[in-house]
Amino acid sequence: MKVLIGGPGTLSGLTLRLGQCLFAAASIGTMVTALGFTNYTAFCYLIASMGLQVLWSLGLACLDFHAWKFKRDLQNPILVSLFVVGDWVTATLSLAAACSSAGVTVLFTKDVHLCDKDYLQCSSYQISVALAFVTWLFIAMSSLVMFWLLASV
Amino acid sequence: MKVLIGGPGTLSGLTLRLGQCLFAAASIGTMVTALGFTNYTAFCYLIASMGLQVLWSLGLACLDFHAWKFKRDLQNPILVSLFVVGDWVTATLSLAAACSSAGVTVLFTKDVHLCDKDYLQCSSYQISVALAFVTWLFIAMSSLVMFWLLASV
Repeated sequence: MKVLIGGPGTLSGLTLRLGQCLFAAASIGTMVTALGFTNYTAFCYLIASMGLQVLWSLGLACLDFHAWKFKRDLQNPILVSLFVVGDWVTATLSLAAACSSAGVTVLFTKDVHLCDKDYLQCSSYQISVALAFVTWLFIAMSSLVMFWLLASV
Repeated sequence: MKVLIGGPGTLSGLTLRLGQCLFAAASIGTMVTALGFTNYTAFCYLIASMGLQVLWSLGLACLDFHAWKFKRDLQNPILVSLFVVGDWVTATLSLAAACSSAGVTVLFTKDVHLCDKDYLQCSSYQISVALAFVTWLFIAMSSLVMFWLLASV
């Protein structure tokens, strides 16, 4: 198997995983501080999806760190297949969560102007959604690298 | 290049493209018949995204049909790279549109119970979103096949 930037067991791969964890955790943190988010299914789904992303990325970050520190090789087809499936599932769920929350946030701010009345913390929703999109960008990069690795075996 | 099910210039590829066109057009048709959809950004975005999907898939369906009928080979790296980029962009936009519309529809039906009052045509919104998700499934299949083809060169 080729060694690619962002592949498993590389320093760039570890950085990508840590980025995913940090941004997903920041997205959850920002949403949780916004009062009333529990009234909206999309925002609860965002928290669940980002929570799953944190768990998955943290697990893989630990594995990458171990492989990088002790020069272990993670690039065997079975392991990479597992990473591909996990990455694609979490990437799709993250994009779905970010987009559904973005849809609801745009509805509040642009369509029904609920944010003008100041009883919804729209800026927190917006920041949380933006952080979720950054998380998705990072996990999309990981997914593409993993899929490329698997396909080029 | 390998010949894969759903690849360019094959009958299965043509079927996938026609499926994408049909479901995207059905999604637009269902949304357009629902009164008041223009008040919501997410639904307008769904129509724009499904419109782009129809154009892209129809173009590739014609190309696939021509290649299949006259036994032309579409599997050269430059063409497949172009298909990969187009497929991934339209697939991401379709998923984003389907999810943002789904977020707004769930908000109407479950969170604020606007649909109980019968002045929103929620069933049309729901059918349109479901059709958009089916479109995304088909385009996701095409994208994966194209990416696999490109990576395995």
